[in-house]
Amino acid sequence: MLPGLGAVATTFIAGVLLARKGLAKPIGSLTQMGTIRLGKRTEDRFPLVRDAVPLASLDDLVFGAWDIFPDNALEVARHAEVLESRHVDAVAAELAQIKPMAGAFYPEYVRRLHGTHVKAARSKAEMVEQVREDIRGFIERQGAERAVAIWCGSTEVYIAPGDVHQSIAAFEAGLAADDPSISSSQIYAWACLKERVPFANGAPNLCVDFPAAWQLAREMGVPIAGKDFKTGQTLMKTILAPGLKARSLGLQGWFSTNILGNRDGEVLDDPNSFKTKEVSKLGVLEQILQPPRYPDLYGNIYHKVRIEYYPPRGDAKEGWDNLDIFGWLGYPMQIKVNFLCRDSILAAPIVLDLALLLDLASRASMRGTQEWLSFYFKSPMTAPELYPEHDLFIQSMKLKNTLRWMIGEELITHLGNEYYD
Amino acid sequence: MLPGLGAVATTFIAGVLLARKGLAKPIGSLTQMGTIRLGKRTEDRFPLVRDAVPLASLDDLVFGAWDIFPDNALEVARHAEVLESRHVDAVAAELAQIKPMAGAFYPEYVRRLHGTHVKAARSKAEMVEQVREDIRGFIERQGAERAVAIWCGSTEVYIAPGDVHQSIAAFEAGLAADDPSISSSQIYAWACLKERVPFANGAPNLCVDFPAAWQLAREMGVPIAGKDFKTGQTLMKTILAPGLKARSLGLQGWFSTNILGNRDGEVLDDPNSFKTKEVSKLGVLEQILQPPRYPDLYGNIYHKVRIEYYPPRGDAKEGWDNLDIFGWLGYPMQIKVNFLCRDSILAAPIVLDLALLLDLASRASMRGTQEWLSFYFKSPMTAPELYPEHDLFIQSMKLKNTLRWMIGEELITHLGNEYYD
Amino acid sequence: MLPGLGAVATTFIAGVLLARKGLAKPIGSLTQMGTIRLGKRTEDRFPLVRDAVPLASLDDLVFGAWDIFPDNALEVARHAEVLESRHVDAVAAELAQIKPMAGAFYPEYVRRLHGTHVKAARSKAEMVEQVREDIRGFIERQGAERAVAIWCGSTEVYIAPGDVHQSIAAFEAGLAADDPSISSSQIYAWACLKERVPFANGAPNLCVDFPAAWQLAREMGVPIAGKDFKTGQTLMKTILAPGLKARSLGLQGWFSTNILGNRDGEVLDDPNSFKTKEVSKLGVLEQILQPPRYPDLYGNIYHKVRIEYYPPRGDAKEGWDNLDIFGWLGYPMQIKVNFLCRDSILAAPIVLDLALLLDLASRASMRGTQEWLSFYFKSPMTAPELYPEHDLFIQSMKLKNTLRWMIGEELITHLGNEYYD
Amino acid sequence: MLPGLGAVATTFIAGVLLARKGLAKPIGSLTQMGTIRLGKRTEDRFPLVRDAVPLASLDDLVFGAWDIFPDNALEVARHAEVLESRHVDAVAAELAQIKPMAGAFYPEYVRRLHGTHVKAARSKAEMVEQVREDIRGFIERQGAERAVAIWCGSTEVYIAPGDVHQSIAAFEAGLAADDPSISSSQIYAWACLKERVPFANGAPNLCVDFPAAWQLAREMGVPIAGKDFKTGQTLMKTILAPGLKARSLGLQGWFSTNILGNRDGEVLDDPNSFKTKEVSKLGVLEQILQPPRYPDLYGNIYHKVRIEYYPPRGDAKEGWDNLDIFGWLGYPMQIKVNFLCRDSILAAPIVLDLALLLDLASRASMRGTQEWLSFYFKSPMTAPELYPEHDLFIQSMKLKNTLRWMIGEELITHLGNEYYD
Repeated sequence: MLPGLGAVATTFIAGVLLARKGLAKPIGSLTQMGTIRLGKRTEDRFPLVRDAVPLASLDDLVFGAWDIFPDNALEVARHAEVLESRHVDAVAAELAQIKPMAGAFYPEYVRRLHGTHVKAARSKAEMVEQVREDIRGFIERQGAERAVAIWCGSTEVYIAPGDVHQSIAAFEAGLAADDPSISSSQIYAWACLKERVPFANGAPNLCVDFPAAWQLAREMGVPIAGKDFKTGQTLMKTILAPGLKARSLGLQGWFSTNILGNRDGEVLDDPNSFKTKEVSKLGVLEQILQPPRYPDLYGNIYHKVRIEYYPPRGDAKEGWDNLDIFGWLGYPMQIKVNFLCRDSILAAPIVLDLALLLDLASRASMRGTQEWLSFYFKSPMTAPELYPEHDLFIQSMKLKNTLRWMIGEELITHLGNEYYD
Repeated sequence: MLPGLGAVATTFIAGVLLARKGLAKPIGSLTQMGTIRLGKRTEDRFPLVRDAVPLASLDDLVFGAWDIFPDNALEVARHAEVLESRHVDAVAAELAQIKPMAGAFYPEYVRRLHGTHVKAARSKAEMVEQVREDIRGFIERQGAERAVAIWCGSTEVYIAPGDVHQSIAAFEAGLAADDPSISSSQIYAWACLKERVPFANGAPNLCVDFPAAWQLAREMGVPIAGKDFKTGQTLMKTILAPGLKARSLGLQGWFSTNILGNRDGEVLDDPNSFKTKEVSKLGVLEQILQPPRYPDLYGNIYHKVRIEYYPPRGDAKEGWDNLDIFGWLGYPMQIKVNFLCRDSILAAPIVLDLALLLDLASRASMRGTQEWLSFYFKSPMTAPELYPEHDLFIQSMKLKNTLRWMIGEELITHLGNEYYD
Repeated sequence: MLPGLGAVATTFIAGVLLARKGLAKPIGSLTQMGTIRLGKRTEDRFPLVRDAVPLASLDDLVFGAWDIFPDNALEVARHAEVLESRHVDAVAAELAQIKPMAGAFYPEYVRRLHGTHVKAARSKAEMVEQVREDIRGFIERQGAERAVAIWCGSTEVYIAPGDVHQSIAAFEAGLAADDPSISSSQIYAWACLKERVPFANGAPNLCVDFPAAWQLAREMGVPIAGKDFKTGQTLMKTILAPGLKARSLGLQGWFSTNILGNRDGEVLDDPNSFKTKEVSKLGVLEQILQPPRYPDLYGNIYHKVRIEYYPPRGDAKEGWDNLDIFGWLGYPMQIKVNFLCRDSILAAPIVLDLALLLDLASRASMRGTQEWLSFYFKSPMTAPELYPEHDLFIQSMKLKNTLRWMIGEELITHLGNEYYD
Repeated sequence: MLPGLGAVATTFIAGVLLARKGLAKPIGSLTQMGTIRLGKRTEDRFPLVRDAVPLASLDDLVFGAWDIFPDNALEVARHAEVLESRHVDAVAAELAQIKPMAGAFYPEYVRRLHGTHVKAARSKAEMVEQVREDIRGFIERQGAERAVAIWCGSTEVYIAPGDVHQSIAAFEAGLAADDPSISSSQIYAWACLKERVPFANGAPNLCVDFPAAWQLAREMGVPIAGKDFKTGQTLMKTILAPGLKARSLGLQGWFSTNILGNRDGEVLDDPNSFKTKEVSKLGVLEQILQPPRYPDLYGNIYHKVRIEYYPPRGDAKEGWDNLDIFGWLGYPMQIKVNFLCRDSILAAPIVLDLALLLDLASRASMRGTQEWLSFYFKSPMTAPELYPEHDLFIQSMKLKNTLRWMIGEELITHLGNEYYD
């Protein structure tokens, strides 16, 4: 179930439908295309992830969504211009069947959008109830065994966690009192938790990342994850920064700019929405490079992130990064990365993986924050006493060793000294 | 002890001298600047590597070298124009004292250089003996306790391992018979092994990577490592490729070109030397991406590597990479990386780390191929039954878990599920 | 009439057909899209070029071709994958009608291609006669009033002009004697001149650029032009270099590399064909920057050009340039240009403009080398006593002032001091 | 005389001093390094500009300045870190002698700077008088024959021309009444005009570009020019855009960003100052590409310009441009330009050329706006009835034909048909 039926959601749905028919491959999905090494290198056991752990199959999925515009998934996919018409045409009938339920939408949190297909409710508490009814109704109509929800809606304006977010009771009171710190995405998250539907958040909004939500997830026995899908530029950043750090190369400055022309770009042209995104994007370097631990290498980094709305690009955004690094004796060097990427193409496989892995976690009785899914997020949620882990390679190791642990296989350390004496 | 007193060697020596005086930092050196996590995340134990394991100190180092030109280290450093004059000036007196011993040099292996400061010997066997005498003499003159050698000479023409390389006996016979498959760098390596001097090879030459050398190293109890320092473009490649693979993104083509204007560029302008380098550079992607295991993602990669001699750049070379990748449903994207780097600045800290870590390994009675030092090489040496590991992040994990294992600390798996019941 | 029915020729033909139907615009064509200022700035007279001078109309064109493979223009266009299927489909019937006449082809001049649809002739002289018959037959079949030929075939191996190229008599003797310095493209050119068909050469081959051809063109009253269409990287070079020179900025080095995967890339992978191209590409800078006149600025340029066959790109080639420049007091700066271009898309409008402008020149009784068309070529042909002009802006001025001169308008000097007392 | 003794001014002064001593070349200066063709190509007359027209010699220059900080030119040059110490050292004594006169400074026009070395005046009219006295005093002290002033100060906040700028009388009244539309730079310009000192404006401020100033310049017989030195990114834009237009290639979008870390970057971090700069930078494309005249090619351009303060770069700023262009039938292509430039190094030779050429113009009795100097400016000043000309190549032609006209040489049209009957 997808709050937000836009470019990402329809690219995800169309792709699953195409993959089922054998018309295209779900590239970028670790669960479908990736392998996991089990045992020693010389054992040569490298099954696909989907064969190693008991994931739901693509054939078992059904799709539901909410949106603040009434267009069905076919109309949205055509308008988004992410997929070529040969791809959309091949699954047009199925896409046309997917019609969004009316959105739970308070416009003050996304100022650039003016939804027309929205629910009315006397209070935010009642709004939660309406969403819960939607969930139950959808599951019943589809005859589904269980559900998972992934937030695919727009970035909301920046909200700092407040008193209302500190406990279940406070949050429930806030819902009843229409507290302005409770945004639309929090309402979806709360409704899902109440219905024991695992929930992941693909945007940088607070949404499901505050003490009351953590607590409710644990009480209801529901796994949660977030936040902000790690796609283009930040993905590159969490690949490159660990590489620099591994080699003890210093960093003096990192400038990142992004040009994009889709609805996401339009929303982020609002400084309030951009702030939420900026906080999500800026934290990455600090956590990977740990300036206090490495004052000589990373103690004085100038990090700047820009997102520029630039319509000629549509969904095919472009990132440009400049890194001012320094090596032996402080000599400066520069790295420039130009990434001609596609927003929804990079996000869609993450939606799929998160749906399947959260469902797996739920069946394995894992509940609350799933730190091992940090791999997929720009701002990973963690236990309160821990720092978030942003290094893509540590995240990957954590994810795979968690899978190994779930199926009782030996954890991998890459020591490998047994091959030498 | 450094066979090859050129830009890399003098940048390394000058840097150690400057660091000792507190005039510059040995940036890029994992042993000096890096930390190692010990225990659980919440224990907050992150000592510097040099404090966690008993490495020799920078203050204890003395430097010796061989070269085929008679210039002392000061003259070489000035000519190389890697370091600014304020840096060279500050250690000029010490550099001027470092005069290379005459080189063991057979010109057919490096055709663009015409050495004038070379040894004469009646056979390659005798040449080995002369180098052994140099080693013993140097150690005695310096009053050194022990020695380590790092090959910092030029890339030799391509030589495939032959019969002469298969056993100690065959190699010794080949030395006596002046076998043309035995190049200058192999002579240095053999002499060092005979003198129980740990040896690392910074170039892609065969040098110390063939069965006879592996066997001799084990018999003499000497650790060895190689080959080809992982610096600019290949370093980036082993950072980026694991990132793509971690996310199951496909790769259609990778084009790499390099412009550089130093002596290395001049030597590699000879197609025979370039071939040695090309083999070293091309293998990287195949080993990381494993096409046979991922036919849909990496089954059809067009990988091309070029090195172009371009004098305007001197030592400050520039790499340009273009990656044609594809994501969800096969949609193409592009990544371009422009690396304005400095060859010797990236190589110097590797020389230092290898010297200190090989010395440590030797004292810890580790002998033969040190796979855990793969981190530093474009073409890592491994046990014959294993594939080389090129992924920088696995290499880093392997190195650090080896250090943890040496000092009896718990290996790290990044599982961390103890924080979430 | 097009010797060579490949990607460029079919992109040109399809585009003209589409433009006629109003389905696409002939972007990149100066004659169709460009304007020309007439009179003073304040007169506001800026007609389209095609309205200012009496050009043939797109509606009047018919297309003929030769090729060494028998595929018709539809098959070629589909295989070339330059145009999207919606474009090819819209003119499929017309394209299918265009079937190439058998090629005059001696394989030793293009070693990577193995033609199957070729003429047999007892001598090169007879080959010329066969091509002449083709021309007459085509004109008669089509009921055309007049013809123009543009070489759109592959780059031939490098041939320096020899004795056989010095006079009409020598060349005719060489044809009879099958002189090896007379390549296939020269045969087409000679046949066209004999038939009074204006001829332009889109490749760097000698073709129509040697004394005997210049003389024959003048004797027969035929305009000729060449050589080597100025498209991607060289186009950029002739834009940037005049800009640097205008500002008296110095140049130390210029490195250019190109990755491309079409048939052109395949042919240029042969070092002999590449040499022809390299000569054409290297001369540009020297002529624009004039090192002897500017020894301090351009006396020591390191200029290197590479073309790399890289199949992932197909026709959508990519150029990467690095310029090492210097300014005030010699301080270095760098400019890097990354051009994601499309070979045939850039060449097609040049074919159109040359056809129309050569036809115009012919009707205006202009004969021999047309220097004013230098604008379109990497290696412009000039009178023997002159140097070629490579600066795109001087070329453009020359072209436009020539058009003004042809129609009796005042030449433009951009003085404009009349506006300020 | 230089209002603003910062990085640009001191780089200019130091460079002239170095060039006089033969220690460095005034690269980037058209007057010193450039040549001018006189007569026909075959006459081979290409004198240096400084030999063709009677310019003042570098040896004749003396330097004066105003600034709002009291540091002398040596202190400023050391702090700016534009020039290497070997260059500054060589002219240190002369630089130390150049001490700025106190600045005429109203802080509301440059909000990020807090000057300490400023004049006090009861009104802006009195401030003009103080500056006039400075000028007369300087000329007398130096024994100079004549003076020229070039604005090298910071960019002021955006001011639209108002009533006060429409006539000499209105402006003089405004000075007396401390009109807030009269900024510091206008005060300098007015004082210079009153003293018959030719004045050029290197920043985008109004300064000397409004009707009252035009009129006063004509009445006093003083040449003026402006505005905003055309250096890094805009220089590239006015090179590339005419190239695209010459070839009738379409443009869909142009995104430009700049990272820089000098005082200029700091000032432009204030949105009000940035607005002045943005207006100056944005107009360029529209004037070159003329959307109304080319609706199919340039009717729908998305043009965005960003300047980002990024301290790691200091004066060595970096521009990154992305152009979305389209060719034949509308097919898209991309050009990316990465310019590693140096702000003051590019500006210094412009200061020199403008000083010498304005002085020449003054002696040639040219007065008022000098459109032929457009070559040097981002926002060229023109007669009110004309549009500004931004095309670097037309600007260069205009400049050189003006010089030819001044010395009675034939204007060049590049027709050259005389070589081909």
